[in-house]
Amino acid sequence: MSIATCRPWSLAELARKFGLQLRGDGNVMVTGIATLNTAGVHDLSFLANPRYRPQLAECQAAAVILRAEHASEYAGNCLISAEPYLSFARIAALCQADQSAAAGVHASAIIGKDCQLGAGVQIAAQAVIGAGCVIAEQTRIGAGAVLEPGVVIGRDCVIAARVWIGRRSRLGDRVRVHPGAVLGSDGFGLAWSGQQWEKVPQLGGLEIGDDCEIGANTTIDRGSIENTVLEPDVRLDNQIQIAHNVHIGCHTAIAACTGIAGSTRIGRRCLIGGGCGIGGHLQIADDVELTGMSMVTRSLTEPGAYGSAVPAEPVRVWRRNMARLRQLDRLLRDLMNGNKHA
Amino acid sequence: MSIATCRPWSLAELARKFGLQLRGDGNVMVTGIATLNTAGVHDLSFLANPRYRPQLAECQAAAVILRAEHASEYAGNCLISAEPYLSFARIAALCQADQSAAAGVHASAIIGKDCQLGAGVQIAAQAVIGAGCVIAEQTRIGAGAVLEPGVVIGRDCVIAARVWIGRRSRLGDRVRVHPGAVLGSDGFGLAWSGQQWEKVPQLGGLEIGDDCEIGANTTIDRGSIENTVLEPDVRLDNQIQIAHNVHIGCHTAIAACTGIAGSTRIGRRCLIGGGCGIGGHLQIADDVELTGMSMVTRSLTEPGAYGSAVPAEPVRVWRRNMARLRQLDRLLRDLMNGNKHA
Amino acid sequence: MSIATCRPWSLAELARKFGLQLRGDGNVMVTGIATLNTAGVHDLSFLANPRYRPQLAECQAAAVILRAEHASEYAGNCLISAEPYLSFARIAALCQADQSAAAGVHASAIIGKDCQLGAGVQIAAQAVIGAGCVIAEQTRIGAGAVLEPGVVIGRDCVIAARVWIGRRSRLGDRVRVHPGAVLGSDGFGLAWSGQQWEKVPQLGGLEIGDDCEIGANTTIDRGSIENTVLEPDVRLDNQIQIAHNVHIGCHTAIAACTGIAGSTRIGRRCLIGGGCGIGGHLQIADDVELTGMSMVTRSLTEPGAYGSAVPAEPVRVWRRNMARLRQLDRLLRDLMNGNKHA
Repeated sequence: MSIATCRPWSLAELARKFGLQLRGDGNVMVTGIATLNTAGVHDLSFLANPRYRPQLAECQAAAVILRAEHASEYAGNCLISAEPYLSFARIAALCQADQSAAAGVHASAIIGKDCQLGAGVQIAAQAVIGAGCVIAEQTRIGAGAVLEPGVVIGRDCVIAARVWIGRRSRLGDRVRVHPGAVLGSDGFGLAWSGQQWEKVPQLGGLEIGDDCEIGANTTIDRGSIENTVLEPDVRLDNQIQIAHNVHIGCHTAIAACTGIAGSTRIGRRCLIGGGCGIGGHLQIADDVELTGMSMVTRSLTEPGAYGSAVPAEPVRVWRRNMARLRQLDRLLRDLMNGNKHA
Repeated sequence: MSIATCRPWSLAELARKFGLQLRGDGNVMVTGIATLNTAGVHDLSFLANPRYRPQLAECQAAAVILRAEHASEYAGNCLISAEPYLSFARIAALCQADQSAAAGVHASAIIGKDCQLGAGVQIAAQAVIGAGCVIAEQTRIGAGAVLEPGVVIGRDCVIAARVWIGRRSRLGDRVRVHPGAVLGSDGFGLAWSGQQWEKVPQLGGLEIGDDCEIGANTTIDRGSIENTVLEPDVRLDNQIQIAHNVHIGCHTAIAACTGIAGSTRIGRRCLIGGGCGIGGHLQIADDVELTGMSMVTRSLTEPGAYGSAVPAEPVRVWRRNMARLRQLDRLLRDLMNGNKHA
Repeated sequence: MSIATCRPWSLAELARKFGLQLRGDGNVMVTGIATLNTAGVHDLSFLANPRYRPQLAECQAAAVILRAEHASEYAGNCLISAEPYLSFARIAALCQADQSAAAGVHASAIIGKDCQLGAGVQIAAQAVIGAGCVIAEQTRIGAGAVLEPGVVIGRDCVIAARVWIGRRSRLGDRVRVHPGAVLGSDGFGLAWSGQQWEKVPQLGGLEIGDDCEIGANTTIDRGSIENTVLEPDVRLDNQIQIAHNVHIGCHTAIAACTGIAGSTRIGRRCLIGGGCGIGGHLQIADDVELTGMSMVTRSLTEPGAYGSAVPAEPVRVWRRNMARLRQLDRLLRDLMNGNKHA
């Protein structure tokens, strides 16, 4: 059963429009999108992750998008692509429901003085736009979102409901920010006075480049005296924490629950797994990959893949191994000194 | 001093109402609830975690709920239960303040077209309910909550303030969602075009079964082309991240700060500790327990307890052990080859 | 280029006002703040982290705040301080933009019955203040913030936009709460009935002392039957989770993404790194430091630094070491028994 439906397209039309090689009947009509094991006879499906190849045998789909090397494994119609996941993404966009809210500014929204709103800007119910904000054409601001005074947002952005954007924040074009994200909050700057903590004023701003995407409930602090910077096409998943003065290079993608401490500079095209922690004042080279839950405490100057987390074992094995790990230095030293029964 | 107060109940009444065995004076009146070491003479207390047994000696409570095996350790009145924590939970519910807001729809809330609101539904101030939402009897929606168009919510739910619920989300009955939670946000779907990331449309929905509870600032993504599913009675603590297409079996409980990557299927009655990370496309069997901060990168096909995190040691010990761990393979190989002074 | 600007101050004025020793020309005027490598000739900069000493050579600043021991390394004007970061923090406060919103209560805010608002209290647009709340002088409540009935907040607090504060929460004076934080949510209390989970009512409250700071999207649960307590001057970064009945001693500072499980007591002046996990029902002594991503599963009764996370290595090295770690107990036992080719 197709989960998403669209107007009918023939396989021949899809092949032509998306530059795919058709194998089979170009007149077959597609009206929906579905996974290999749920697709019906009018649904388009795809094979990107080879883990799902066994599902081809039973697949009922109108057609499957797949690589040439897998086409022989499927008896039905194929749309052959060098990058099936990319082709799927583009075709799936045809099925997306039109999510546009009513145009214009909802009567319950509060718009501060001297704001500039471009043509086609939508401001949803209960949103609060501070004085002097500049929002370019076709950008949509969701319900209950709050922009502090002076925020600048480019065109064709989607700022979801309940997002907060602080002063001295500037977003490029086509930026997407998901619900609950906090952009441009104060960094964690503290100085010890001898008796108590004193807050270090956070005077910097936040720059977010074109085409960035920021996940739900993710937080990005403004800089302390310089700006926090996301270069274009940085992609952040949900519940990520980016501290003050971090700089992230373009095309870097970071999975959920990762935290990056202050003043660290992340390179371009990095792929950072979920739940990672990266220390402060570090340099991470371009093209670094980090497996999930890794901790980085030193600069990584070479591209390549790095990891550190310990994979789960049955608890009794894990406990015994951890008991050894607690004494590892001593035990190995004893062994190296020939003391066997340590 | 009791922290919570209620109308007076006699011990005899409580014993009868909750099926407990009374030992002591059934006429003693209880007007509040407190811990063992803070209870006054009109407070009811309980012993569930044996760690707190030493506090029985000094306890002043009107009565203590405890297991039969501990009754001899307390000189005062007892309500004997096979499950003291469960009995406490049920009695404590008598003391809960009535948190009902004013009935009906607050004048400042925005209700879209064609919504269906059941009898007794409450919509608090500044909430935004999209067109075509269906909200069943007695459900309460908190201040500033945002429901996108077409959301369906069952009866007797409590959707707290500032919750966001996306399109194609369907919640069962008696679901509780705590403040700041984001349900049905876009999953993190990216396809690399060769030059930049392209967003993969997230076309699936979110199904949340009866009696589920979702903690504060937790995020659950909608499915990409299938639905993300929580079966009934799934319990999620705060700040959890559930990625697209995850399926969680009924009665599974997950502690705070855990993240589950996309398309993973978690079994029934699992107990997952805080701060865990579970990789994508995995199968976790029924009745799996995971200790806190564990990382799972392979499917766990057998029930049982698993763990992986390293417990903290004094820094100088930890640093020495980690220096060895970095060379562990080489050091062990040398030792196994008889090369002692590696 | 200065990122923050202020009204002109002479170096002589700054030295006098902040108790610093001036070396150089007291008539030089400062109009902004900047980092060592971006400061222009009218900007003040500082050297606190010795890592940045090499930047002194090229620094163009009007003056640099630094320790006496580093003054010889800089040829320009100096403001000498025993604590340059603290002096910088205090001077930077002169440059902070006035962030006060319009005084009074915004027309779109909803104020419940019987609230007491002190002189100079500001309530921003779309905020919802429950019945019976007490908010002392000069405190500011941000846009879309929600206070449940009966919340008590001291004077000179800044409660940012979209913060939620639950019933039975009491905040001291000068508390700062950043956007999206959830204070006083229900703890994760579940009792298994034999068939399903039953919710344990969360009857306690939340006490937050004077001068505390709570980061963006951080969550703090109310107590179950006692209160959750933050003593004065506790500082929490973003996306932290504090469970029910936790007690945190004064001056303790916790970095982002850390989670603390229920009923744990943290001492005074602790410094807890980012991404840590601290188990429930533990005691952490005063003056404990915890390195980032550490896991604590036992009480720490002695002050000092503790750590546990594994630092990242290149993936092939990490995988080999983890394969050994999985068998560590067996391998070491074999080696200790003289069985070399395990």
